[in-house]
Amino acid sequence: MYRVETMEDIRDMSRGAVLLGTGGGGDPYIGELFVRAQIRKGRYPTIIGCDEIADDAFVVSIAGVGAPSVIVEHLVSENTLHRLLARAESFYGRRIDALISAEIGGANSMFPLALSSISGLPVLDADGIGRAVPQIEMTAFSIFGVRATPALVMDDSGNIVTFDAVSDRMAEDLIRVVTGAMGAMAFGAFYPMTGKQARETAIQNTLTQTLEIGRTIRQARLSGTDIFADLLAYFAGWEGRAARVLFDGKIVDVRHETRDGWHWGEAVIAALDDPEDQCTVEIRNEFLVARRNGRTLAIVPDLITIMDRETGEPLTGEMLSYGQRVKVLGLSADPALRKPESMEVLAPRLFGLDEDFVPLEGLMAAATP
Amino acid sequence: MYRVETMEDIRDMSRGAVLLGTGGGGDPYIGELFVRAQIRKGRYPTIIGCDEIADDAFVVSIAGVGAPSVIVEHLVSENTLHRLLARAESFYGRRIDALISAEIGGANSMFPLALSSISGLPVLDADGIGRAVPQIEMTAFSIFGVRATPALVMDDSGNIVTFDAVSDRMAEDLIRVVTGAMGAMAFGAFYPMTGKQARETAIQNTLTQTLEIGRTIRQARLSGTDIFADLLAYFAGWEGRAARVLFDGKIVDVRHETRDGWHWGEAVIAALDDPEDQCTVEIRNEFLVARRNGRTLAIVPDLITIMDRETGEPLTGEMLSYGQRVKVLGLSADPALRKPESMEVLAPRLFGLDEDFVPLEGLMAAATP
Repeated sequence: MYRVETMEDIRDMSRGAVLLGTGGGGDPYIGELFVRAQIRKGRYPTIIGCDEIADDAFVVSIAGVGAPSVIVEHLVSENTLHRLLARAESFYGRRIDALISAEIGGANSMFPLALSSISGLPVLDADGIGRAVPQIEMTAFSIFGVRATPALVMDDSGNIVTFDAVSDRMAEDLIRVVTGAMGAMAFGAFYPMTGKQARETAIQNTLTQTLEIGRTIRQARLSGTDIFADLLAYFAGWEGRAARVLFDGKIVDVRHETRDGWHWGEAVIAALDDPEDQCTVEIRNEFLVARRNGRTLAIVPDLITIMDRETGEPLTGEMLSYGQRVKVLGLSADPALRKPESMEVLAPRLFGLDEDFVPLEGLMAAATP
Repeated sequence: MYRVETMEDIRDMSRGAVLLGTGGGGDPYIGELFVRAQIRKGRYPTIIGCDEIADDAFVVSIAGVGAPSVIVEHLVSENTLHRLLARAESFYGRRIDALISAEIGGANSMFPLALSSISGLPVLDADGIGRAVPQIEMTAFSIFGVRATPALVMDDSGNIVTFDAVSDRMAEDLIRVVTGAMGAMAFGAFYPMTGKQARETAIQNTLTQTLEIGRTIRQARLSGTDIFADLLAYFAGWEGRAARVLFDGKIVDVRHETRDGWHWGEAVIAALDDPEDQCTVEIRNEFLVARRNGRTLAIVPDLITIMDRETGEPLTGEMLSYGQRVKVLGLSADPALRKPESMEVLAPRLFGLDEDFVPLEGLMAAATP
C-alpha cells in the first residue's frame, strides 16, 4: 500500500500511462490535473497490491468512455465523480471496497486515482489490459471471465444509463452508442468483480509501472543520460517482455479523423538521414501497427509508442503533428494477452488489419538475421 | 371494466389503431396475432376506465420501440413479455397495478393488451397521445408532467438497458440509439406514474375508440353502407373533434426509406378523374402533412389517415404502394394536443415542416369559402 503524495509522482504516472496507452486511451492530463488539485489539498490517492485485497471484496472499474479527442477537452468535476460513486453503489446494491483501472493506458489510469483521492477508496495496483484497447470486450477481465456489465454510465448533466448485456461485445455496442448520444464523453462503472477475480484476471503492478516508466524518463532527462537506453534497461527488468526502439525519425505526414466515436489516422515518419526510409503507424484510437518500408515491426496487441526523440515524452495519437522528431518504441504485450483465448478478441484481424499476430521478438529476430 | 373476448373485437381494435396511427406507430398486426392466440386459450385482456384506478396505483407504459418497418417483421414472444414485466417491477422496485399504452396509434395499442392477456394486469382505457408520434417527449404524458424515465428497454436476446434522463428529449436520444444497437426493435417500460397522474394527463377512452372505429368500418362493409359516411357520422359524436375526407384518388408515386431508425417517405395521390389534381402526403413514420396541389389540407398534430377506398381499411405508411385506390381522412387532434404547451413539442416545424399549425377546421373553412 502506498499513497501518491507528490506532484512529481502523479506527473510520472501520467507520463507512464501515455506510454502504455500506445497512442490511445485518451490523454491522462485532465485526470492528472484533477489529482494534482487534490494532492494540493492533502487528499492522496491510495494504491494497494492485489495481494492486499480480500477474496470477497467488491471491486469496480471506474472509467471515462468516449472519443479520446473529446476526453482531452473534457474537465472532470468532483461532483460528477461523487455522484458516479453514489449511483454505482446504489445500482450494484453494495459498497465498493476498491477501484481498479479498466485500462492503464491513457486517461483511465487517472480516473480511479481521481476518485480515490476524494473518496478514500483504494485503487488496485493493476488494470484490465496493461495497455489501451478500443473496446470493452478486449480486456483481460472480459477474456478471463469477468463481465463488463452490469454497468452504469452517466454524463455531467446527470443522465444515467445502466446496462446488463448478454455479452461484452454487445455491451460495447450499447455503451458506445449511448456515449455518443451523451456527447462522446461519459463516465461509468464497469466490470463488477470480487477481490479474488481481480487478482486472477487483472494485469498486475501496472500502476506502479506507470510511475516507474515516468520516473525513468524524468530522471534520465535530469541526469543527461540517454533516455531510451535507460528506458530499455528499465524494461529489461520486466519478465517475459521485450522492448526495442523500432524507428527514429521525423513525422512527414499525419492524418487525423474523428468518426463514429473513434480517432482514426496514420502517421508517416521518415528517417532523418534518408527520407525514403519510412515508418508508417496506423491509428484507430491506439497505434495498431508500425511498418518500416512495408515490413511489419510491431503489431497489436504488442505495444507501439511514439515518443519525442529529445525529451522522451510519450505522445498520444492526437498529439502527433508534422515535423515532430520522434522515436517509435515497441514493447511486447503482457504474456496474458498473447494466450489463444486473448487472440480471439485481440488478434490484428479483429482491428481490421490484414495480417496475423507475430510477437515483437519474432519480428526483431527476422529483422536481424 | 371489460374484457376483449372475441377475434372480431381484437381485429376491430387493431384496425382502429392503424387509423389513429396516421400511418405510423408500426402495424399492430403482430401484437394482434399474439392477443388472438391468447384469446383462443381463454386469456383475455382486461380494460378499465381511468375512473376505476386508485390515485396511488402504479401505472407503467409497456411499449415496443424501433423502426415501424422492423416492428412489422418482429414476432413477440410470451417469454420476452413476461421477462419485461418481471424486470420492470424489479427495476421500479414495486408491483405494477395497471398498464397504459404510450400511444394508441399502431403497434403500441396492442402490446399492453398482449401483456394484459398473459399477466392479468388491466390496461387503462387511455394512452399518451391519442394518435402516434415519432418521439418519446411528444406524448401528453411528457407535456403535462409525467417523465418517460426511469425507463427500461430490453431485446429478445436479454440485453437490458435502463435510463434515467434529465429530460424526455434526452431520453428519446438515448433510447433511440440503444434501440438501434439492439437491431431497431426492442420492448420497454416507460412513463412510470400514479393512477392520478394517468387520469390527469392521458388521452382517455382511446382503446374503446379503436374498437368502435374498427367496428364501424366492419359493420359498414357488412351492411353495404358507405364506409366513409358511417365513419364521419361516428366521429361526429367525438366532442370538439372534426373529421373530413380530404382526398379521393389513386397512389401514383410512393417513396420509402428506412434511415436513422425512421421510416421516411412521400406518397402522391392523383384524383381518379383528373391526374393533375394531386394530394401529396409527407411521411416521417407518421403522415405529417397532406397538401392538395400545394395547399395544406391537414397538418400534424391533427391526424391524417390513408384508407383503402373500397374496404375502408386504414393503411400504414409501409403498406402504401403504387396503384392503390385510397381516400385520405383528416381528423382533428385531441384538444389537449392543441394547447400552447403541446405546440412546444408538436408544432409542425419540430417535424421539419416549414409551416405553422392550422387546425383542420380552419383549413376546411378556408377551402369552402
